[in-house]
Amino acid sequence: MQNTIINHRSIRKYKSTAIEDALLIKVLEAATRASNTGNMQLYSIIVTREEDIKKKMLPLHFNQAMVMQAPVHLTFCADINRFHKWCEQRDTTPCYDNFLWFMNAATDAILASQNACIAAEANGLGICYLGTIIYNAPEFINLLSLPKGVIPVAAIVMGYPDDESTLTDRLPLEAIIHFEKYKDYLNTDINKYFEEKEKSNLTKELLKTNNKKTLAQVFTENRYKISDNVFFSDKLLNLLKSQGFI
Amino acid sequence: MQNTIINHRSIRKYKSTAIEDALLIKVLEAATRASNTGNMQLYSIIVTREEDIKKKMLPLHFNQAMVMQAPVHLTFCADINRFHKWCEQRDTTPCYDNFLWFMNAATDAILASQNACIAAEANGLGICYLGTIIYNAPEFINLLSLPKGVIPVAAIVMGYPDDESTLTDRLPLEAIIHFEKYKDYLNTDINKYFEEKEKSNLTKELLKTNNKKTLAQVFTENRYKISDNVFFSDKLLNLLKSQGFI
Repeated sequence: MQNTIINHRSIRKYKSTAIEDALLIKVLEAATRASNTGNMQLYSIIVTREEDIKKKMLPLHFNQAMVMQAPVHLTFCADINRFHKWCEQRDTTPCYDNFLWFMNAATDAILASQNACIAAEANGLGICYLGTIIYNAPEFINLLSLPKGVIPVAAIVMGYPDDESTLTDRLPLEAIIHFEKYKDYLNTDINKYFEEKEKSNLTKELLKTNNKKTLAQVFTENRYKISDNVFFSDKLLNLLKSQGFI
Repeated sequence: MQNTIINHRSIRKYKSTAIEDALLIKVLEAATRASNTGNMQLYSIIVTREEDIKKKMLPLHFNQAMVMQAPVHLTFCADINRFHKWCEQRDTTPCYDNFLWFMNAATDAILASQNACIAAEANGLGICYLGTIIYNAPEFINLLSLPKGVIPVAAIVMGYPDDESTLTDRLPLEAIIHFEKYKDYLNTDINKYFEEKEKSNLTKELLKTNNKKTLAQVFTENRYKISDNVFFSDKLLNLLKSQGFI
């Protein structure tokens, strides 16, 4: 188990082999065993296997090839719709259409997604998260017919791996962990913690390809730019409003 | 592994036995292997073991006994502070102080938390999430000295279990899963999916204790009331503003 977690790597190339129904059910059941707020299960999981829906997802997921290649997508949604309907049918007024409960529902959905990933990997499948799900959440809502009160917050593709990717680096544990109180980072800490990442061959390649002097510039000026961040932030906040959470 | 996930139950009573340092490190390392946005690791984990900090946490976590009893707390924080400092030291302007990146960082922190839980459980420990962390996030920020750009989004207590709790119920899988498109719930679906939960002995006890006619009323009128939800929603949104994410 520890090994499954420690050896996790995101799989971006998949065999065409389908996922057996029984295995898919096993993965979905694992998802629903995750901790969740008040055992209210404020999430839904959309299973995508049809080619024509994947085709429509492709541009929304920024045209990543694995979108078409992976046999199964799971889209995890914060969902107060089901619970609200239950309340209305049971002589009480539901009251979870607010930001606190968006966070609770989103947290539950994300915990469920990680359970699904680990169960999938323990059974020989590979997975990759698609962060693009929240960039284009309104379009996914339209495509997947999500009603008010439902917002997709995590998406994974899943299938049998067809690549030989290696583990990606992580910052040293001491960069992430604080004992008792947050110890803010001195300049020397930052240099120490990012040293290995900055000296890696991957970084050297990235600097060359992107024609940048520092790896941080690759992030801020190429990968995740201020103009995009502001645009997608506004879009996401507006969606929370239109889906009834703010 | 599948068994670890399927047999998860939240542990609310702990032995006084300490968690060995090596095991704690193993759990924390498992946390950091989770998928994360752009491998930027926009989260920090605060380890709490000191009695006097737990004492201050106790009322913030609504006086749950396990807060004092569990030997270790892990508080998972969305954290753009470390990455921003790195950008500033590397000749570029950081740009992750917005809502999109709060969601990305929070997602990463929550995925890491679930890895920690599964690793802990696979090694004989028990865990329980404390949803109260986001209710009183400003007070936790103060207590744990979290700087601007850092918000706690998930907290768990961890230790050797000292209870014989059984698995909690879940809605039937078909209530949670949608194939290809979201199939909105008819009244008859709601009745069917909630039937088992509503007929359980636990529900019968809850109705009696709370003097309510329906389980939904226990949720909306006792456990998670509209006035609390509105209050804590506003508090959380204001915190996102003061921590620089909106």
